[in-house]
Amino acid sequence: MKKLIRGLRDFKSSYFRANEELFEQLSHGQKPRVLFITCSDSRIDPNLITQAGLGELFVIRNAGNIIPPFGATNGGEGATIEYAIQALDIQQIIICGHSHCGAMKGLMKLDKLRVEMPLVHDWLKYAEATRQLVNENYSDYEGEELLDVIIAENVLTQIENLRTYPVIRSKLYQGKLSIYAWIYQIEAGEVLGYDPQNHAYVLLQNELPPSEINQKLISPPLTSNVEIHSSEIKEQAYKLPQEIPSSEYEWFPMTVLSPEQMERIYRGSMAK
Amino acid sequence: MKKLIRGLRDFKSSYFRANEELFEQLSHGQKPRVLFITCSDSRIDPNLITQAGLGELFVIRNAGNIIPPFGATNGGEGATIEYAIQALDIQQIIICGHSHCGAMKGLMKLDKLRVEMPLVHDWLKYAEATRQLVNENYSDYEGEELLDVIIAENVLTQIENLRTYPVIRSKLYQGKLSIYAWIYQIEAGEVLGYDPQNHAYVLLQNELPPSEINQKLISPPLTSNVEIHSSEIKEQAYKLPQEIPSSEYEWFPMTVLSPEQMERIYRGSMAK
Amino acid sequence: MKKLIRGLRDFKSSYFRANEELFEQLSHGQKPRVLFITCSDSRIDPNLITQAGLGELFVIRNAGNIIPPFGATNGGEGATIEYAIQALDIQQIIICGHSHCGAMKGLMKLDKLRVEMPLVHDWLKYAEATRQLVNENYSDYEGEELLDVIIAENVLTQIENLRTYPVIRSKLYQGKLSIYAWIYQIEAGEVLGYDPQNHAYVLLQNELPPSEINQKLISPPLTSNVEIHSSEIKEQAYKLPQEIPSSEYEWFPMTVLSPEQMERIYRGSMAK
Amino acid sequence: MKKLIRGLRDFKSSYFRANEELFEQLSHGQKPRVLFITCSDSRIDPNLITQAGLGELFVIRNAGNIIPPFGATNGGEGATIEYAIQALDIQQIIICGHSHCGAMKGLMKLDKLRVEMPLVHDWLKYAEATRQLVNENYSDYEGEELLDVIIAENVLTQIENLRTYPVIRSKLYQGKLSIYAWIYQIEAGEVLGYDPQNHAYVLLQNELPPSEINQKLISPPLTSNVEIHSSEIKEQAYKLPQEIPSSEYEWFPMTVLSPEQMERIYRGSMAK
Repeated sequence: MKKLIRGLRDFKSSYFRANEELFEQLSHGQKPRVLFITCSDSRIDPNLITQAGLGELFVIRNAGNIIPPFGATNGGEGATIEYAIQALDIQQIIICGHSHCGAMKGLMKLDKLRVEMPLVHDWLKYAEATRQLVNENYSDYEGEELLDVIIAENVLTQIENLRTYPVIRSKLYQGKLSIYAWIYQIEAGEVLGYDPQNHAYVLLQNELPPSEINQKLISPPLTSNVEIHSSEIKEQAYKLPQEIPSSEYEWFPMTVLSPEQMERIYRGSMAK
Repeated sequence: MKKLIRGLRDFKSSYFRANEELFEQLSHGQKPRVLFITCSDSRIDPNLITQAGLGELFVIRNAGNIIPPFGATNGGEGATIEYAIQALDIQQIIICGHSHCGAMKGLMKLDKLRVEMPLVHDWLKYAEATRQLVNENYSDYEGEELLDVIIAENVLTQIENLRTYPVIRSKLYQGKLSIYAWIYQIEAGEVLGYDPQNHAYVLLQNELPPSEINQKLISPPLTSNVEIHSSEIKEQAYKLPQEIPSSEYEWFPMTVLSPEQMERIYRGSMAK
Repeated sequence: MKKLIRGLRDFKSSYFRANEELFEQLSHGQKPRVLFITCSDSRIDPNLITQAGLGELFVIRNAGNIIPPFGATNGGEGATIEYAIQALDIQQIIICGHSHCGAMKGLMKLDKLRVEMPLVHDWLKYAEATRQLVNENYSDYEGEELLDVIIAENVLTQIENLRTYPVIRSKLYQGKLSIYAWIYQIEAGEVLGYDPQNHAYVLLQNELPPSEINQKLISPPLTSNVEIHSSEIKEQAYKLPQEIPSSEYEWFPMTVLSPEQMERIYRGSMAK
Repeated sequence: MKKLIRGLRDFKSSYFRANEELFEQLSHGQKPRVLFITCSDSRIDPNLITQAGLGELFVIRNAGNIIPPFGATNGGEGATIEYAIQALDIQQIIICGHSHCGAMKGLMKLDKLRVEMPLVHDWLKYAEATRQLVNENYSDYEGEELLDVIIAENVLTQIENLRTYPVIRSKLYQGKLSIYAWIYQIEAGEVLGYDPQNHAYVLLQNELPPSEINQKLISPPLTSNVEIHSSEIKEQAYKLPQEIPSSEYEWFPMTVLSPEQMERIYRGSMAK
């Protein structure tokens, strides 16, 4: 606690003093452009990893970056989403999962939680679609690889849930809202974004040379797992594209990949 | 969006590169010491204002830093609290409200929300104790002053709700858990902490010269409002003290204040 | 009642006598191939309009052919869907709305229902996404035309809700499930099916030449409403296609109706 | 699917063409006289077995023809019942169970369902009264016979649930509503109706000669099971009579049966 108190003082004397104008201005209101939904995990700092300034990210954080379907409960998620879209007119939503997620580990031993952590157990009901999908389609995965798949699939499951909210449905309908699926990889300090074109999670730092991207796509179990199941490819092919206006595709590295690179990526994942 | 993607790259090339060891270590697990509950407001960055490092703060964020009482709903708040206390053995919780809070403004025009934002309306039900307490005890306040009181009272209301969770109750009982009420003042870049001894929110940067503190305590409507109502004093008197082991009192500035300063503060607030 | 009792006797002496073998066989179990979800409206007889035999359609009927999102409630819809997919291994789902739907009329005067029919009012919460979408995107429609749009949009809203069920999500993922949006037009005795290619509801009795589609699509209030909003077209473009394997496209009529038929349909519907 | 599309065309060209006037008339509104609540089972076609025409039956269908008690959940059942009674002024309700019901089989192995089909498991909670009554009063039954008893009792349990709805309670009170318990026997193509006088389910085709009725009454395990348990008789004795104005008794065959016939029926079942 002492440390935090000292931190408050340092913040005031350094950062605040250097940006008094910004704070003066912020005190008159906020106009964030992005709703950032992520896990409560202490290893994630949305503003740090995106280098976003104060006033840019409206943030929802809970265990497992989970969004209950509309009407399923009266927790803070629905109200905060409604406020972000309706009152703040935010037009971009990022749901950001992360590697080594404790909540997703919980999905792998759900029964154990019923007694130990009943509230967590009940909360994970909203990730049940992830659990069942993975059980029925990834029976050959286990350990870290299985966890990576669960993490990747859960972000997409939560987007399905997000789509049931009236405010979301209406804005998507008008083409005024974009939803992005991200995964933050702690050990690499990198963020993978869901690529609707290739049905895979790919590196978002698109200035990296293709060779590296390729490497990325086949090296971490995450994306390769996600890629090799053709059933899944078909599935994911229709999951996100709707929310990502083609003008956004440029964010995705594959636009700078050559057929040969894609080919290598494909082989890379089939190799598993 | 472009900006965020660039930010990701900058983060990787600068911060991450400079701290690879930390990330390597974090990838093996988290051991946060504090559960930080605050608003989704884009103007708040918990790690920035406390200068806390990655891995130190487990964060819950929703509109209005509200915690529904145990059993009231199946949102993410309860599950995340349970996980923080049970699985991560966190022993310190900070509920941090903030000035100019949009959710608290909503409490002032609740009926209007029923139609405009039904989910926000239903969510604010868990701050109804704040609304009623303020209506019945601050009838002479309005505008900004009233909002400051609502913000200050709501943090304490949410602590009452927090106390209804089995895991919280049990840990408090064992003296293994401390709960702090904070208010972040955007325009001042300062954090006020609730002082159970004087039933007031006071500056946490306790090295500031007494004169400034005094000024702080009597100038912003916030703390003075909070102080003058004896009903509220009685109310607050039983709220936090039992959870704050005396060893924690030193965090509070008044311990370094002279009786004269305390006296001035007292008069300052009674003067209203 | 007398009439129904007589009907039972007639059924036994006529239909049953003529098909004893079928009944003998059915008594050993059911193997329906389609889950047919429609309204309780007395003017709809699923087996009659599809000429389906006994044992072919597993049927859910409630006011408004509404499916609450997963976890939103514990009504019969979720359990029946789970039983249909899990226990009966059904791989095709049809959600069939219909013209002149009383429940959808209720959506147009929701407040009035709060007191008059509280349960209907609460039930329509699961069609709130339809109400909001239509309010915000069809402000220039009213009366019969508005009702037609609400009916058409609601079927698509309910498919969004349907997608949040774990069993549905997993089967879609494996490409083992198809979901169809239908609208039964009582006055015409015809069924319009959602056509993902043209983002419109079109006649399922497939006789028309491609050239006519366009005409067809702008003539009847229903489809024309559905079509003229480009925003909606973009929206619908991504709504259903995922669930309709291209092999299914042939079901769609736009290929072969004569101009005369289109003309008749046009006049027929405009006559209203 | 092809088959259904062809069916739609056949329906239009045959049935619809032959009854255009009826459809024209139906398009102006519905005035059904009966609310027919039955199972989703594909082997049941309410309009076929009762030979009822379009516009006569307002239909609710879910797994197990179950009606949750008022206030227990927000599924479609309550809203649809409210709409039927309040908006359509329907004055007759039939709850129709059926032989070989999969949902009722589920009641016999409830624990197994908890994991396999959680939603079905939770849904059957509203048939728990049936399960317990049968467990405690039919310990000597098993297999098909037990299933028949469960099916018969469940229809009566659901009528108890139905009676908890405000609209139902009020109409019953005014003698403006009649509720009937039916069981459709697939293999026989016959419907048994609950007879409040003799506390038995009996054949509704009341023109059959007594001898046949008698035979009927003793042959299927169903009705005899239902009959011989005095506990059950007592149970049923207070269940339906109060809702069936004596004017309705004539529907029941036993009113034309002689004491000797009843005697035979009684002996017939005791003989087992």
